[in-house]
Amino acid sequence: MRFPAPLVTLIRELGRLPGIGPKSAQRLAFHLFNRPTADVEALAQALLDAKHGLDRCPVCFHVKSKDAPLCAVCEDPRRDASLVCVVEQPADVLAIERSGVYQGRYHVLHGVLSPMHGVGPDELTLDALWARLDGIEEVVLATSTTVEGEATAMYLARSLHEHGVRTSRIAYGLPVGGDLEYADEVTLGQAIAHRRPF
Amino acid sequence: MRFPAPLVTLIRELGRLPGIGPKSAQRLAFHLFNRPTADVEALAQALLDAKHGLDRCPVCFHVKSKDAPLCAVCEDPRRDASLVCVVEQPADVLAIERSGVYQGRYHVLHGVLSPMHGVGPDELTLDALWARLDGIEEVVLATSTTVEGEATAMYLARSLHEHGVRTSRIAYGLPVGGDLEYADEVTLGQAIAHRRPF
Repeated sequence: MRFPAPLVTLIRELGRLPGIGPKSAQRLAFHLFNRPTADVEALAQALLDAKHGLDRCPVCFHVKSKDAPLCAVCEDPRRDASLVCVVEQPADVLAIERSGVYQGRYHVLHGVLSPMHGVGPDELTLDALWARLDGIEEVVLATSTTVEGEATAMYLARSLHEHGVRTSRIAYGLPVGGDLEYADEVTLGQAIAHRRPF
Repeated sequence: MRFPAPLVTLIRELGRLPGIGPKSAQRLAFHLFNRPTADVEALAQALLDAKHGLDRCPVCFHVKSKDAPLCAVCEDPRRDASLVCVVEQPADVLAIERSGVYQGRYHVLHGVLSPMHGVGPDELTLDALWARLDGIEEVVLATSTTVEGEATAMYLARSLHEHGVRTSRIAYGLPVGGDLEYADEVTLGQAIAHRRPF
């Protein structure tokens, strides 16, 4: 027995989303089949509105409304323009904003250096970063603590030092609220090596 | 910092899908933001096409093309019309079809009896099941083996016996390829109680 073509197409399209395998795509498709038409139309419309109504900030490459000249952070005159935090993706900006401790600006790379996946410096927003260094005193390297994130941070640190800009790296250590027993040994080693006076 | 409105809307709509929490919704939204416009439009179109192009089969309530009178199984004259398998949802039909051993028809309940969630017999497609019993010799009860699936199977078995129809329940036992050591004791107990001569 074969599925009707529109269902096959929907399952295929849903299955292209990250983290959604063939089984999940099928479950989602059947769920949508059972939802009121208005709900499905709202989702379709939200997809189109987001795609057509959003753009990348020309300064930091974070997400912005198409009708705004800059993103909300770059537009805010109270944000410290001498401090820039480099992150991999827009979601990281939100994560740091939620912490509430950062008052500088951002620069979104839209990826990490990854020779294995063919991502070199030219695939990231690095040229734009070099172009905006004037007036920047410190760059916080907040790429993730994966191998590729570390390599990207190292590369950036070296290049930024050549440009005469100070860099820092987000701290390694135990997650707050974490149990020592469950920490992996590399994290625990870093947490001990970077211990601070109490 | 706040997200642009189209992004907030998209995250909210994606977060309504089953199994997609706020974090996944945000990750999906950013993923789509970075995809080519054509890809996002294809997904939106697939949603609309599936919603407008699909319907429930008037006989068994499985999914069917809007322009076909019946679903693919009900349309197929080679399928045994005296044998009907009752399942909870359309995805279960596909799962059973994949096994390749079933040659009868189906009846999709679109749910299970669940007093806790306010789902009684009237919320399922039971009236349509009673209406099609003429010519049916056996009903295979293939609701899931959860508490609610079991209760639904029990309820159906009782009602079907009153209608003079033979019922059967899918077998309990060890999953094929499963390790005895990892089976839960209820399943293992059932597997031993329902052992077959070798």
